[in-house]
Amino acid sequence: MKLRIDINCDLGERYGHFQVGQDADIMPHITSANVACGFHAGDPNTMALTVKLAKRFGVAVGAHPGFPDLRGFGRREMQLKPEETRSDVLFQIGALQAFATASHIRLQHVKPHGALYNMAARDAGLSEIVLEAVKCVDPELIVFAPSKSIMAKVASKMGFRVALEAFADRAYNADGKLVSRNKPEAVIKNPKLVVERVVEMVRKGTVLAINGETLDLGEVHTICIHGDTPDSAQLAKALKSKLLAAKINVKPVGSFL
Amino acid sequence: MKLRIDINCDLGERYGHFQVGQDADIMPHITSANVACGFHAGDPNTMALTVKLAKRFGVAVGAHPGFPDLRGFGRREMQLKPEETRSDVLFQIGALQAFATASHIRLQHVKPHGALYNMAARDAGLSEIVLEAVKCVDPELIVFAPSKSIMAKVASKMGFRVALEAFADRAYNADGKLVSRNKPEAVIKNPKLVVERVVEMVRKGTVLAINGETLDLGEVHTICIHGDTPDSAQLAKALKSKLLAAKINVKPVGSFL
Amino acid sequence: MKLRIDINCDLGERYGHFQVGQDADIMPHITSANVACGFHAGDPNTMALTVKLAKRFGVAVGAHPGFPDLRGFGRREMQLKPEETRSDVLFQIGALQAFATASHIRLQHVKPHGALYNMAARDAGLSEIVLEAVKCVDPELIVFAPSKSIMAKVASKMGFRVALEAFADRAYNADGKLVSRNKPEAVIKNPKLVVERVVEMVRKGTVLAINGETLDLGEVHTICIHGDTPDSAQLAKALKSKLLAAKINVKPVGSFL
Amino acid sequence: MKLRIDINCDLGERYGHFQVGQDADIMPHITSANVACGFHAGDPNTMALTVKLAKRFGVAVGAHPGFPDLRGFGRREMQLKPEETRSDVLFQIGALQAFATASHIRLQHVKPHGALYNMAARDAGLSEIVLEAVKCVDPELIVFAPSKSIMAKVASKMGFRVALEAFADRAYNADGKLVSRNKPEAVIKNPKLVVERVVEMVRKGTVLAINGETLDLGEVHTICIHGDTPDSAQLAKALKSKLLAAKINVKPVGSFL
Repeated sequence: MKLRIDINCDLGERYGHFQVGQDADIMPHITSANVACGFHAGDPNTMALTVKLAKRFGVAVGAHPGFPDLRGFGRREMQLKPEETRSDVLFQIGALQAFATASHIRLQHVKPHGALYNMAARDAGLSEIVLEAVKCVDPELIVFAPSKSIMAKVASKMGFRVALEAFADRAYNADGKLVSRNKPEAVIKNPKLVVERVVEMVRKGTVLAINGETLDLGEVHTICIHGDTPDSAQLAKALKSKLLAAKINVKPVGSFL
Repeated sequence: MKLRIDINCDLGERYGHFQVGQDADIMPHITSANVACGFHAGDPNTMALTVKLAKRFGVAVGAHPGFPDLRGFGRREMQLKPEETRSDVLFQIGALQAFATASHIRLQHVKPHGALYNMAARDAGLSEIVLEAVKCVDPELIVFAPSKSIMAKVASKMGFRVALEAFADRAYNADGKLVSRNKPEAVIKNPKLVVERVVEMVRKGTVLAINGETLDLGEVHTICIHGDTPDSAQLAKALKSKLLAAKINVKPVGSFL
Repeated sequence: MKLRIDINCDLGERYGHFQVGQDADIMPHITSANVACGFHAGDPNTMALTVKLAKRFGVAVGAHPGFPDLRGFGRREMQLKPEETRSDVLFQIGALQAFATASHIRLQHVKPHGALYNMAARDAGLSEIVLEAVKCVDPELIVFAPSKSIMAKVASKMGFRVALEAFADRAYNADGKLVSRNKPEAVIKNPKLVVERVVEMVRKGTVLAINGETLDLGEVHTICIHGDTPDSAQLAKALKSKLLAAKINVKPVGSFL
Repeated sequence: MKLRIDINCDLGERYGHFQVGQDADIMPHITSANVACGFHAGDPNTMALTVKLAKRFGVAVGAHPGFPDLRGFGRREMQLKPEETRSDVLFQIGALQAFATASHIRLQHVKPHGALYNMAARDAGLSEIVLEAVKCVDPELIVFAPSKSIMAKVASKMGFRVALEAFADRAYNADGKLVSRNKPEAVIKNPKLVVERVVEMVRKGTVLAINGETLDLGEVHTICIHGDTPDSAQLAKALKSKLLAAKINVKPVGSFL
């Protein structure tokens, strides 16, 4: 079997006049775009433009629903009722589907955003609520979940195709959790090192944890890169070319899952 | 040909804790619900509940997109760029479609809300922008437009099925425009009179204007009632039963247009 | 010493077109109004009207800052950074002060709203953050806090005048906590019983807990009534007149603290 | 009399995670900061930081109230009722005052933002509404208005100190209006030319209009520079040093008006 990997990135995280990110520079070097759906970022017009941009570069589009907290960018934990979470997820996927329809493409996947993603990753009940919403809209959607997370297990059990995700530029603890962003060593900035780690993730399903142990990530289908660091476009470009040089195919997860 | 009419009402115009309207009382007596899509009203959970309620009573569901102005309830004119309006309409229809899909129904129609509806009714350019958005999502959607409005003409020209609308409880000027809500005589509160006017609208396509002249409305497919007046549920109930008594069929416009 | 008590109520909890509550009916029967400041409810125009209404009835005005969660009415717990909470509280108090200034009155107090109030009541760190914000704006503001709460202790220690609050229409557990709203017995609906309980609170500083034990509330300066129950205006009216009949003075807490 | 001028810039126009502008770079080179108040931009925490930054550099602080349209950055015209505009302005000034109070400074001025500023500049009725709100909060606040605008006249008539404003980097039509931003020649990008124009504005009260005629601006107290262009910090720095070299004092308008 040929080795292959998907590279995903959160995009369309602007809001009206508030222009952040460097979507146009990153898009050519990734294969799946997680598009903000208006709650934590992503006004309707940005959604329209982002979907069109993704289509132009053959990048698969997924919904990136978050908490209704624009000011906190969906990164602040909120305690919602189950039916509120369910409806919020339905709403956001539906809104993005309209732009996909208008661009004559279909959504490939769903990846919850920020605090919602982190909370669901460790909470089976919340995972079920989110994923039932996804199922109602389109059970064919691929679910992105951190490799070895509770959410990944719940999604599999519910019959979804699950794209297991690892992080290219984030350090891991030996227990498989990401090193907190509060710590200086949380983000790996050396592009060469990032590429090496990703190649290891794809080839062996392992990565060096921060304490020097080898961490078993299991199978990895998609690598997350972050679009909000200053040189993320260069990183994405380097990553893609080095993966190709290492005989690893880079393509949307929907094409091989 | 048997006489028939649709009765539509704006519903789901709550927002979280802010509970307005009497949807549960009105729903049994109408045939088309214009469901708020989150911009001028209608949080996601309200949308979910409203679509379910409509389905339970066999009421057809339509999107009711408005300006992004929750505080002003979408009733304040805003000057948006064409692509902003287009994306806002796409977004709102898509969001509602997700709830329709989750309830295993299809949307029947689109009726813009408030200031957006009033501005489009008289402005061909704005009508085109709004309707191109509708076409992108689903060209089978029926477009609601005031009878004899510019928007009605544009929608026809663009190939849409158009539901021509008249207002049950609003007084008309001789030129076909509604009497401004600022005037005391704008709203007709006598239920008996409302019913008589609607019967005349359906039978003859005419209504008595405020100056005593007979106003030609042309064909009328759907009658709008307002859900935010204290006794609108009783009015809806009376209207439906009187219409049936007058041998006028009351059913969703999608069933006869 | 003559017995005296303040009656406070959350008011101005509308948002634009979304008209909830019965402020005009309740205002004549209370002595302190906690006015929503735009985050969980209370658009600017509602704030203006509410302050004017309070002034007309000689009701003291306080700020009622909440989480930035309009849809959840500030009742959903959110995890904010300390500086975010601090700035949110400053912002809301300042906004209300402008309306107080415009009406030639001064704010009497601050009472956090909903989840922010509940979280601060049990968390010294959060209490300090909120109260440091209050101190920055005006250290003369009276702080409302549940009797015997951690927040009450923190406020005293920081040098604030503290209005200790008890709830007229809510059942208490023996440990002093309110019976959860999820339980049917949480809200006491019999107006006669409510009045009796309040008289006992004022006279003896005690109340009958739900298990039949007598709960020591300590000194109580202000009684909270809820404005969002259907008959709260009547309850407020009855409460005030019965208290007066029981020789208990009813007046703004700022006049006796 | 010694020549003197104020340099003002819109700052604090971020929103939560959405970081725009280069406030820290510009602040050292201006004398008055127009601080966004949460409606078109400027979350509470950004307001807190911006006021502190201004204080550190001895920059005078003013409120920069806008339309309640975060997505449109307050640049889209909205039709509000007079009482809505009035309350919106009161709210925003009050909110900023809280941060000023917390930083032990007083607000110097008010300059409406975007569409609200443009609409008020040409509409006496709207100017009165806005300025009555300002008067209610603090009649000592200086009002910024375009030189020769209707708003400037209304403000003077109402007894305000008025800071007459001209634009450093915008081209003027011969009738005194700014060249529309839609035209390529609207923004003057040559820093040398910008400085020359400003010196002429301060010395003679004139500027070269786009058709080559000399336009009489009358007295000019404050020069607006735009913080959202890539090299605005350098422009501000160059402008200040060249003005000083030309023996023109650069200081907050409140110190000489």
